[in-house]
Amino acid sequence: MNMQKIVTLLTDFGTKDTYVPQMKGVLLSLNPALKIVDISHQVAPQNIMEGAFLLKTTYSYFPPGTIHVAVVDPGVGTSRKALLVETEKYFFIGPDNGILSPTLHKETIKNIIEIKNSEYFLKNVSITFHGRDIFATVAAHLASGIKPQQFGPTCDSYVQLKFPPLLKSSPTKGEESIEACVIYTDNFGNLITNVQKNDLDLKRKYEITIDGKKIQGLSKTYFDKNKGEIVALIGSSGFLEIAIVEGSAHTQLSPTSKILISPIPAPLSL
Amino acid sequence: MNMQKIVTLLTDFGTKDTYVPQMKGVLLSLNPALKIVDISHQVAPQNIMEGAFLLKTTYSYFPPGTIHVAVVDPGVGTSRKALLVETEKYFFIGPDNGILSPTLHKETIKNIIEIKNSEYFLKNVSITFHGRDIFATVAAHLASGIKPQQFGPTCDSYVQLKFPPLLKSSPTKGEESIEACVIYTDNFGNLITNVQKNDLDLKRKYEITIDGKKIQGLSKTYFDKNKGEIVALIGSSGFLEIAIVEGSAHTQLSPTSKILISPIPAPLSL
Amino acid sequence: MNMQKIVTLLTDFGTKDTYVPQMKGVLLSLNPALKIVDISHQVAPQNIMEGAFLLKTTYSYFPPGTIHVAVVDPGVGTSRKALLVETEKYFFIGPDNGILSPTLHKETIKNIIEIKNSEYFLKNVSITFHGRDIFATVAAHLASGIKPQQFGPTCDSYVQLKFPPLLKSSPTKGEESIEACVIYTDNFGNLITNVQKNDLDLKRKYEITIDGKKIQGLSKTYFDKNKGEIVALIGSSGFLEIAIVEGSAHTQLSPTSKILISPIPAPLSL
Repeated sequence: MNMQKIVTLLTDFGTKDTYVPQMKGVLLSLNPALKIVDISHQVAPQNIMEGAFLLKTTYSYFPPGTIHVAVVDPGVGTSRKALLVETEKYFFIGPDNGILSPTLHKETIKNIIEIKNSEYFLKNVSITFHGRDIFATVAAHLASGIKPQQFGPTCDSYVQLKFPPLLKSSPTKGEESIEACVIYTDNFGNLITNVQKNDLDLKRKYEITIDGKKIQGLSKTYFDKNKGEIVALIGSSGFLEIAIVEGSAHTQLSPTSKILISPIPAPLSL
Repeated sequence: MNMQKIVTLLTDFGTKDTYVPQMKGVLLSLNPALKIVDISHQVAPQNIMEGAFLLKTTYSYFPPGTIHVAVVDPGVGTSRKALLVETEKYFFIGPDNGILSPTLHKETIKNIIEIKNSEYFLKNVSITFHGRDIFATVAAHLASGIKPQQFGPTCDSYVQLKFPPLLKSSPTKGEESIEACVIYTDNFGNLITNVQKNDLDLKRKYEITIDGKKIQGLSKTYFDKNKGEIVALIGSSGFLEIAIVEGSAHTQLSPTSKILISPIPAPLSL
Repeated sequence: MNMQKIVTLLTDFGTKDTYVPQMKGVLLSLNPALKIVDISHQVAPQNIMEGAFLLKTTYSYFPPGTIHVAVVDPGVGTSRKALLVETEKYFFIGPDNGILSPTLHKETIKNIIEIKNSEYFLKNVSITFHGRDIFATVAAHLASGIKPQQFGPTCDSYVQLKFPPLLKSSPTKGEESIEACVIYTDNFGNLITNVQKNDLDLKRKYEITIDGKKIQGLSKTYFDKNKGEIVALIGSSGFLEIAIVEGSAHTQLSPTSKILISPIPAPLSL
């Protein structure tokens, strides 16, 4: 009944400036019972892919009904749409620039709404800060019981953003190798690639090549080898990661180099 | 009745150290129902003006009754006063060093109290951390219903801090130019000046000169020009900002240089 | 009855990545009424001592019953134990690698539990992220009323981590000097040493030597001397700190050098 609604915030606004607390003030002014949780505000400025990655790997840990607000919005003030998407379990609010799309691919969509009804905006919407003037107010009103359809017309598509595609190369032996790249570097300097668990056959053994170095097989933990050695493993987000034991792969390898993942041929049975 | 009170915190304590969570622990020990919202803890150490700017641009987005605690306090342990100010809508708590003053100029003041009643402090007040030992405890007691006057005697003034004054230069043509400076740099590298919307006549056209470069007219958005070009615009905080399209004005211009804002003479009607 | 339980989080996960919000999502999914407070997520990666210092100086400011979760966990996925410790006032949850031990030395321990009951874990525990898959879920279930003993068997010891010992040197005069070191550098560049208030006789006068510079006596505040001068004082955490008035001891002194604290002989009474 009187259940606290959860609103999460994901932005590239940083934590020094007051863009984020302005959004929180607006949210709490309209709905003082909200519980607000920060996903991250340190998305690299205007890096939609990074925001998309962080949202995709986090949203599903929150309780059903959570309202996820994601604002990495280089096109603010232009004609890009503002979206509210209702899925079976969650609500997502943000600019229609692809930041929501990798997440929506995993969810069952019920409604896509183009946010247009200024009745639910701050008075005097600024041209440069829709996070506060539109997205925060819509999230607060939604949490207070306004129906999604009241915010604007439904639409049937949204801008697609895909992580870089995996390239399959076909070496002479008939085995396919995968060419991958780094899509995110975490706080420990671990390099997170665009290869997901399902892209690999975990019964096979792989050789991974990055920056001229070769890694034989996947490790279970970040400490499977000796200090300073390179390990490859499926991280907690389900993506293939490259790490250095008690070190930083980010500073010790070249994160922009191509990564090659090749199945190691099974030994011939004699 | 049992409404959750909101307390905001603005400090220069950073987010690595535990000064801020110590304050939160003290607040919640005295009043477990509080809702605590961080404004910013990354004010440059001891930079009262930066703290004052961040408070002034944020406080009004919070619901009436919010208690704003602002602690940038280089004089802690000296004879500087501790203040609790009640305005028509809010409460403000902090050292009397000017950090509150630009905000108070915008509000209708009801009471200025010098915080003196040690009954509402932590036992064993430290000399170096009044944020925890005095300001947090006073905020919690205030939220619990203690009246402002119980914290100490009223006083009728407070230390004034003004943003650097705008200098008007008087060129020969009879038109006044404004000399401005940068008072804050945000996460995107945008340079926020001491010129406010009301200082300009937005029906006029202006030429803005910074670091030897000239900008003609004000833009509506950060993307009004081509990538790499300089734009000037009234930002979401109501101050004139200098930005570089998809770049950082902070790293590409000299933020300490003087900024000149000159009205462009209207063409003669022939 | 319906009291909100407080859970604090201390990690080395940083605030950019989504490890921390994933933990928060898990906590709130299991117990939506929780109040979650961040202690710090900027512990230097895998630095157990720094985490132990931050926990020890903060936990006691929170209300009795608070559940403190501390995850600096370089051994995740190895055989290190997971602990839940109940003391007279608090609960502590984290890896058994010493991070809890300086705190536990100050508390009266009631129960030490080795967390083993996977009924209270996330399904599919990852090998690399027990903060989310075990520690967060255990904290949420504990807050919901599950008894400590239900999480696993009691044990009677835990891994000890001590701050570096103070070395007493015995100069010829019969007076003992203390050799100390820096265990933490705060946001202001103040150097916090392993010397605690009780290690000194505050009725004596001391000479402190760091990086070839000598400081006579302890100051009361960070502003007891002129700008740029070095002061030594007992900080708000109860440890001896070295600071520079309106400057940064971290950048202006060598924080890795030994610190010598020598009592100054009392003048002879003639």
